[in-house]
Parts: sequence; structure tokens; C-alpha cells
Amino acid sequence: MRREDVLARLREFGLSLYEQMSRGEFPRVKLRSRTLKNIVYDVESKQFVIGDKTVVRSAANLRQIKSLTQLIWVAYFAYNSIKANQPTTLRDLYYNAEAFGIEFEDQSESNEIVSDLETVLGIPREDFMIYPEERSAIFGDLVVEYTHPDPDYYGKRINLSSHPDGVMIGPALLSAEFVECNADKVIAIETGGLFTRFIAEKVHRRFNAILIHTAGQAPRSTRRFIRRLNMELGLPVYILTDADPWGMHIAMVIISGSANAAHITDLNTPDAKWIGVWATDITKYKLPTEPMDERDIARLEALRRDPRYKDPFWSREIDEFNRLKRKAEQQSFSRYGLSYVVDKYLPDKLALFK
Amino acid sequence: MRREDVLARLREFGLSLYEQMSRGEFPRVKLRSRTLKNIVYDVESKQFVIGDKTVVRSAANLRQIKSLTQLIWVAYFAYNSIKANQPTTLRDLYYNAEAFGIEFEDQSESNEIVSDLETVLGIPREDFMIYPEERSAIFGDLVVEYTHPDPDYYGKRINLSSHPDGVMIGPALLSAEFVECNADKVIAIETGGLFTRFIAEKVHRRFNAILIHTAGQAPRSTRRFIRRLNMELGLPVYILTDADPWGMHIAMVIISGSANAAHITDLNTPDAKWIGVWATDITKYKLPTEPMDERDIARLEALRRDPRYKDPFWSREIDEFNRLKRKAEQQSFSRYGLSYVVDKYLPDKLALFK
Repeated sequence: MRREDVLARLREFGLSLYEQMSRGEFPRVKLRSRTLKNIVYDVESKQFVIGDKTVVRSAANLRQIKSLTQLIWVAYFAYNSIKANQPTTLRDLYYNAEAFGIEFEDQSESNEIVSDLETVLGIPREDFMIYPEERSAIFGDLVVEYTHPDPDYYGKRINLSSHPDGVMIGPALLSAEFVECNADKVIAIETGGLFTRFIAEKVHRRFNAILIHTAGQAPRSTRRFIRRLNMELGLPVYILTDADPWGMHIAMVIISGSANAAHITDLNTPDAKWIGVWATDITKYKLPTEPMDERDIARLEALRRDPRYKDPFWSREIDEFNRLKRKAEQQSFSRYGLSYVVDKYLPDKLALFK
Repeated sequence: MRREDVLARLREFGLSLYEQMSRGEFPRVKLRSRTLKNIVYDVESKQFVIGDKTVVRSAANLRQIKSLTQLIWVAYFAYNSIKANQPTTLRDLYYNAEAFGIEFEDQSESNEIVSDLETVLGIPREDFMIYPEERSAIFGDLVVEYTHPDPDYYGKRINLSSHPDGVMIGPALLSAEFVECNADKVIAIETGGLFTRFIAEKVHRRFNAILIHTAGQAPRSTRRFIRRLNMELGLPVYILTDADPWGMHIAMVIISGSANAAHITDLNTPDAKWIGVWATDITKYKLPTEPMDERDIARLEALRRDPRYKDPFWSREIDEFNRLKRKAEQQSFSRYGLSYVVDKYLPDKLALFK
């Protein structure tokens, strides 16, 4: 959402509270409930969404007045951050509250209130300039123009292949506009080693791809950026991870989001494809493996209970992991030579989705 | 070291083996021992170094022939990677060995052999194009010129402040030459949140600083890059971490390297300064804290036994952590407002080292 629109919504929110008070009413806010009972998996949009059940935070209720006050302060914090063009994190917000005499038990309480504000306004926290701590990276033939108001950068352009080690995905890129794109797909890669290899092997040119290094589980803002590449530029998205329950779920979260963020509907890329490394590839490509440990097995069982894995493709892969009780890394293709993953595996997999 | 020089050394190494064989001798290699007994802390250079004790790997000895063969193969792998301009990781090397019928029990065995080759040739593995998996980032007014032979980049230049989210520190940057630097110091920062804040608050301009995001413990190649900024450009280096044993040790490893890499002497920056967040800052700045857990306490005790922490400054900080049994995050300064860390804390600390 555009900066001005976010500021306008925050002002409306403040005004609605003000008007209630000037009418002599206790101010109250109604928002959709984010309890598990009100979260359902929507097969159509391939994501968790929240239902219609609502809750109220009223200043007239002694048990609600604290969270209402916190919510109003978080809106104030967001408004000021945007006005000052000051990127923050959930942790900054938690600490900064002290300066205003706003009390949070711990950071999980302040995180919840940020989610409340997201729910009330229907705006993800990144648009309040609250960004994740984690950083991921990107490389590819895409020209962007910075739109954030910093005069050093406003209106300037960069080609995201300017630096062959990749550039960081942060506030400036997330708010940039796409100017020119010469790629026709996005490949998201779990590990830094393979991201670097792909650049050296010219995957961006040979496969016309924008490369994204998720650095493990992709940060929320990166998932939203992947969605933009998919929706705004029409680029199909392919995800390449380790062959283990964790890698599989990195792909799933890019495709389907997470239950935690069911109140935000623009974080996922429903059409993105997990192109491996699949459990079934372990046998097919005779990959070197390691045994799964207890944590891996427990994770696999948790995924099996997740409605998103009921689909035949995903449950086949879970069954195969379960049968093998082994896992393999992206880099294990190096047993066939360092270029094998690019020369053979990647074309094989992309052909499946043609 | 320059690419051609590395290749020349690898050829010499091969030639020495070849000559032994053509004289009818069993080939052998002598290298300095990296056992703990042969590692000492050198107060002068503020790092662990290896002593003069040597070991031999000879083809005439049945117990040594395997590791000698592995060593020769690793040299071959390195030579080919450089020739093909193909960045790899320790993991790639481990997997790739299978393609050649070279057996390693596990990756720790192949990692050891890579360290052997580093020891024999006195060349760090990054010069063999074997890079860490982890990625860190940089932002600042420094123009570099790429020297790696990829024709897409060779001879091209970039200013490292071209992208306001920062650019990745990877193979291309590590082998680049410094062309023009308008900064007069380096500030290395542990967390992504503060790195981004520093860019937004124009720390690079207000303090003439190159900013580095270590992303936790700085990867080895990043530590070597920090050393280059210090040695080649004469820039003092300041390190800002969380106030806990882990943060303190992030600084120490940049300053003093690690015992693991005692055979490599150009990874550390002896004059770098840890500018906080110190244990003593917790009380001085009345920072919000969390209690240390058992892992933190155990870590603190381990650091106390490390000879590098005998210095009065470091042992004072260990004592203070131990007395408080509490820790604080870099971002806890936000309790005084989001800009406080830049407006007040950073100038206070830099003034101490003027």
C-alpha cells in the first residue's frame, strides 16, 4: 500500500476514536478474532484465513482498557515511524514502549498488539515500516526505482544484477517499484552456497531467472516481495530447498503463508512450485543422505497433521520421507560434479512445470 | 593472494610430489601440526598461532596414505575450482569427492583435509574459492573494482552504497580491489535491525563509516574482509553487539580469530575495538534486560578460561556479566527513543577511542 494511504488509514483510525470520545462514549474498537477457532484453511487461495467472529476492545471494560491503550500506542508508533521514514523491528517497538510508559509483559504481548493493528486496518506491519530482523538476498536482471522519501535515493534506479554477490532485500527494495524486468521466472534457493553457485553458473541468464536467497525460512517481507514478483510481473516462482521436512516447509510457507499471519492475505504465492529436492528425488538421483534425527521425524509428523499437506503430491513426499527416514541436502548433487544441479537437475525439474 | 599466485603454488605442490615419484621415492608431505599442543596464543599479534612441531603424510606409511591421497585430491579440486571460476563450499567439496572415488567418513574429515592444504600452502581456503555458507552484508561509500575473471564483471566498479539495503559480501566482493574510499572507519553490527536503522539514520555519512552486518558470528571470509579494510585502507574498526557472552565473543573473534584457524594468520583485525554493548553499559544506561539462562552462564565460564579474556578490560566485562547474571540487546536502547543509539550512545563510545 502507498505510504500516503497507510498514513490516511492511521489518521482515520485515530479520528474514529476521537469522535467516539467527543460524543461522550467510551472508545471501542472491533476486530476480527485471530483465535484458532476462527482460522480456517481456504483451499481456493491456498492459505489460512480468518473467519467473521469479532472481538471488541473497549475502554469501558476494565479487562480491555490495557490492550486498547496498547493498540492506540502501536498505531501512534507506526504513524511516527512512517512520518520519520524510520525502519523498525518488533523488538524496537517493544523496547520503545517503555519511553511512553506503555507496559508490555514481554515481546510476545507487543507482537500480538501489532497483529491486532494489522487486523483492524488490514495493513501488514511492513507498511508501518516494522521489518523482520532476518535478511535475505536477490540477484537478477530487474531494474527497480526507489520510492521511499529519502532524498538520497528517491527516484534512483538500480539493476539488481549490479553486484554479483547479490543485494539485500530490505526496506528500500520492498517499497521500490519495478521498472524493467528481463527475467521470466523466479527461483528461490534455501542455501547461500547454492545461491552463489547459481550466479556463477549464470542461471540468471541461462534460465532467465531472478534468484532469491531465502536464507532458510524466508522472512515475511521476502515472501511478500516474492508475491509481488509473481503478481505484478507475472513471473512463475520455483522453490529449491534441501530434501528434508524443513526444506519442504520453507516452500509451503512461500506458497501458503502461515496460520500466524492468517489475518494478512497478501503474503503468499499460491502458484509457486516446490521443485525439490523432493524425497522421491533421493532415490531417483541416488543422492548421498544422512539419517533423519528425532527432531526431523517429529517435524514430519507435525506436517502430516497440517491440512495443507493433504494434497496428493505433498502427502506422497511425506510418505516417502517417512519410508526412507533419511534426508539430503541441495548440495549433495555435487557428487555428480559441481555443475550437475544446474546442467541436469534444474532443467529436468523446470520441464515438469512447462 | 592473487589468483595466478595461488595457481602457481598449487602447481608447485603437484610438481614436488611428481618429482619425488620420478626419483623413485614414495611421495610425502610435511606440514605443521594443528593439534592443540602445538597451538599457542600470541599476545603480540593477539591471535592463536601454530608452533613448529610438524607431521608427515607419506605414501610409504599405510596409515597415512589415505589422508595423503585426500590431500592431493583437495589440491586438485581447488585447482579446478579456480580455473573454472567456480565458487564452492566445504559441503560441495565433501559431496564432490564421491564422484572421484575419494572417501571421507563425514564432512568433518574433509574439512580437516582442507585445513591441511591451507597449512601446507599457507593459503586460506577462500583463495581456493571455497567460501562459507553464511552471508553477511555491507553498506558504505567505498568504490570497488571486480577482479574475478568473469567477463560480465571483470574491471567493472560499484559503489557499495548503491543499494540502500546493503549488498552481500561474497566471492566477487572478497576478490575485488579497493578503488576509492570516502569513509574513515568501519562499524560492524551484529543484528540486521540495527544495520538497517544505521543506514536510515545516515550513520555512514554522519560518522563517515562503512557499515557491516555480521549477521551474528561473522563468517570467516567477512573477518578477512574486515582485516583488509583495516590494513589496506587504514580504517579503524568498531564492533557493536548485544550485551551478552555471545556478542562479546563475536567481537573477540573479529579481533583475535579462532583457535580452529590458528594456521591462518590473516583472518583477524588485532586493532579492532569492541564498543559495546558492554556489561557495564547495562547499569550505566539503565537498559532493559533479560536474565541469562544456563547456556549463557556456561558460555561465560568458557570465555573466562580463554587466554584472550585475561586482559583487564575483558575480564572486567566478564565479571560484570557474572555479577548481573543479566543480558541486554543492542535494540534495548530504543527505550530512550529510536534514534538514541545513534545520537547518544555511538558518539559516546567512539569518543573513548579518539
